[in-house]
Amino acid sequence: MTEIIPGPGTARAIHSGELHRSLADPLLSAMTFLNEVTHRFPDAISFAPGRPYEGLFDPDSITDFLQAYREHLERDRGLDAAGVRSALFQYGRTNGQIHELVARTVANDEDIHVPVESVVVTVGAQEGMLLVLRALFTGPDDVLLVSSPCYVGITGAARLLDIDFVGVPETDEGPDPERVAAAARRLRAEGRRARALYIVPDFANPSGTSMPVDRRRRLLDVAAAEDLLVIEDNPYGLFTTEDVRTPTLKSLDTDGTVIYLGSFAKSCFPGARVGYVLADQAVVEPDGTRTLLADALAKIKSMTTVNTSALSQAAIGGLLVRAGCRLREWNADTIAFYRANMRLMLAELARHFPPGSGVSWNIPGGGFFAVVTVPFVADDAALECSAREYGVLWTPMNIFHLDGGGLDQLRLSCSYVEPDRLVEGIARLAAFIAARGVRV
Amino acid sequence: MTEIIPGPGTARAIHSGELHRSLADPLLSAMTFLNEVTHRFPDAISFAPGRPYEGLFDPDSITDFLQAYREHLERDRGLDAAGVRSALFQYGRTNGQIHELVARTVANDEDIHVPVESVVVTVGAQEGMLLVLRALFTGPDDVLLVSSPCYVGITGAARLLDIDFVGVPETDEGPDPERVAAAARRLRAEGRRARALYIVPDFANPSGTSMPVDRRRRLLDVAAAEDLLVIEDNPYGLFTTEDVRTPTLKSLDTDGTVIYLGSFAKSCFPGARVGYVLADQAVVEPDGTRTLLADALAKIKSMTTVNTSALSQAAIGGLLVRAGCRLREWNADTIAFYRANMRLMLAELARHFPPGSGVSWNIPGGGFFAVVTVPFVADDAALECSAREYGVLWTPMNIFHLDGGGLDQLRLSCSYVEPDRLVEGIARLAAFIAARGVRV
Repeated sequence: MTEIIPGPGTARAIHSGELHRSLADPLLSAMTFLNEVTHRFPDAISFAPGRPYEGLFDPDSITDFLQAYREHLERDRGLDAAGVRSALFQYGRTNGQIHELVARTVANDEDIHVPVESVVVTVGAQEGMLLVLRALFTGPDDVLLVSSPCYVGITGAARLLDIDFVGVPETDEGPDPERVAAAARRLRAEGRRARALYIVPDFANPSGTSMPVDRRRRLLDVAAAEDLLVIEDNPYGLFTTEDVRTPTLKSLDTDGTVIYLGSFAKSCFPGARVGYVLADQAVVEPDGTRTLLADALAKIKSMTTVNTSALSQAAIGGLLVRAGCRLREWNADTIAFYRANMRLMLAELARHFPPGSGVSWNIPGGGFFAVVTVPFVADDAALECSAREYGVLWTPMNIFHLDGGGLDQLRLSCSYVEPDRLVEGIARLAAFIAARGVRV
Repeated sequence: MTEIIPGPGTARAIHSGELHRSLADPLLSAMTFLNEVTHRFPDAISFAPGRPYEGLFDPDSITDFLQAYREHLERDRGLDAAGVRSALFQYGRTNGQIHELVARTVANDEDIHVPVESVVVTVGAQEGMLLVLRALFTGPDDVLLVSSPCYVGITGAARLLDIDFVGVPETDEGPDPERVAAAARRLRAEGRRARALYIVPDFANPSGTSMPVDRRRRLLDVAAAEDLLVIEDNPYGLFTTEDVRTPTLKSLDTDGTVIYLGSFAKSCFPGARVGYVLADQAVVEPDGTRTLLADALAKIKSMTTVNTSALSQAAIGGLLVRAGCRLREWNADTIAFYRANMRLMLAELARHFPPGSGVSWNIPGGGFFAVVTVPFVADDAALECSAREYGVLWTPMNIFHLDGGGLDQLRLSCSYVEPDRLVEGIARLAAFIAARGVRV
């Protein structure tokens, strides 16, 4: 936020109450907070934002990715010099130009097989959420189900579009399918409709929780029975702590229940802002014509961003070419880094907080996040104190809860810190917690 | 659109009536049509899309722009290697990282002086429209005024957000300020509110029309009197046919009436998808705290795209550095190209259609577009015939009218064709028109 002194060009004042109601919702400040909190305390050790580790990024690689993409356009797609120039600089296909590479990658990495035309390349998964919500929700009687605690990107996007949402409490195995069904039935009894459920089945943000495969299968059955679409968001799936992989909901989906949101922010790099939606559902017109949900998303995308940056698509496309459309192998070093960091963070927590200390945490099977439960209120004020006096940043879990819960919990992200800083950071966190009267 | 045969993964059918109502509006197909029509008829000469000329783009320049930006980060912003890496790869400031370069450029090129913090870097001007509409419009009683015929990007974005709009007929000097005032008063009498007017004062899309400076001044007075914000969109302003420049509304604005949408799609290149909003209006909270409208737009942007591609910002930022933040000079060759093409197109029209032929057109002072009036219905079916049988593409003006008008007009874009193809294309257009019984 920028405090300003009235001056030339700022004579016209708009009262905040005259702006859209979403702007008054703390949700819309949460993302800015997560993205910018590191800038406010540059010397603090940050377990706050879910940012990928930067140490493995190499600025010189961009030129190589762009070169790989140009070669791909010439060799694999038969473009001449003018065609390559157009692909890099000009407006293009609304749903993107790297859709074939994306389809190949999800087939290799996630065993997901969809028609190439059902891939919508988006400006990060966030634009994907916006497009999907806009397409599916028609009015005040359509309600979004989300597990709670929940990623703020989906609830914030819902707020922008005046879409109501209802939380289904998360267990330590993700949302309980029976409670999802109950929520859908409760809404139906009220004359409303649970249109879709948003879920991160693998190493959820914020909780780090994952759904076992049986629960995934049961959830798909429930969704089919309740005529509920499932929006599966999978930014962290590659980053398992063991060499086992639970199948994605989309790979288990045989009847088009799941709309899949993918992101290259963690498996490639966030600065490209490239994500995708897999939307292979059929849309049936009154005259019987059938198109793909992806085509409807394209119409909406033409009015949000027109295209995803051709330059970003070229960089990510080139990286996919270099990676042979296999991001799991490509990310071997990154996966190893996150594994080691997660283990280290959990070990350091165990070292500082022995049983009986009143401090506990979960043991995620991968991803970036773990949740620590403390015997005091871990709110924005506590974070401010932690940052200013102890030089350590984390995220209050409360901002992810729909019902005011999570006040005694904090989210730690292990993704962004070097191991030696991580050790020092957990020591600082322990000092902060000790100062609150907790035995450590 | 993709016609599909039901198969595995497409068992779930969604009826089109169950999707958001915007998807049933022809407006949302218009942009996809404009972007993809050239792909449907690859051999036709295209006066259809408002795409920039590609002949001056050089794929090798991208590496140079990225290099220039890296040097700028080190030299002008004092970043070390880690800082540069973070700027290129990582999540960043929601409102963008090239805001200072943008502010310098609009000062140099358009004599617009705003606080750097009021610049919001967006995924093209299209995202800017979405953010501004979402911030300003609170419910069904807030109405958007647009000049008619009107760019479909703004009306389409309004449809996504269920925002009502009302057309103010355009004259050959843009919208008449008195009719704008009358429209605002009429809405007020109905208990509704004209919240903002969207306008392209320079070489409008689709009409090519410009507003004289006196009319601009009067429009600002009317807007202030009627408590109406003006959304000025200026993608074509650099491309004048003479070396004179009418001041932008924003440069004439002394009291924060104008929210300015800028685009680098035509002055740099569209593939980057980088635009910006200048939003220096003060927002006043109930407790008297003042922030900038740009801060509210950031909150919304955090839920649409999170960030504008860092890679795209680096490319455009590097280009701005190389250009000394003076895009008019940088675009000297491009400006000359469009000037020559516009003159040639108008001359060729005059050669084929002498006075009395029943075919007429306007004489734009710059930009990409001219409008031809013909004595027959120039609709989608006529375009299909023109493309298939005569190998020439244009855009039916009807899609830009809110009231079904413009059926006897077609929009010609002179921006995308080589001069020799332009001459041949107008000859083809003349043959198509002649076949409709018009004396040529």
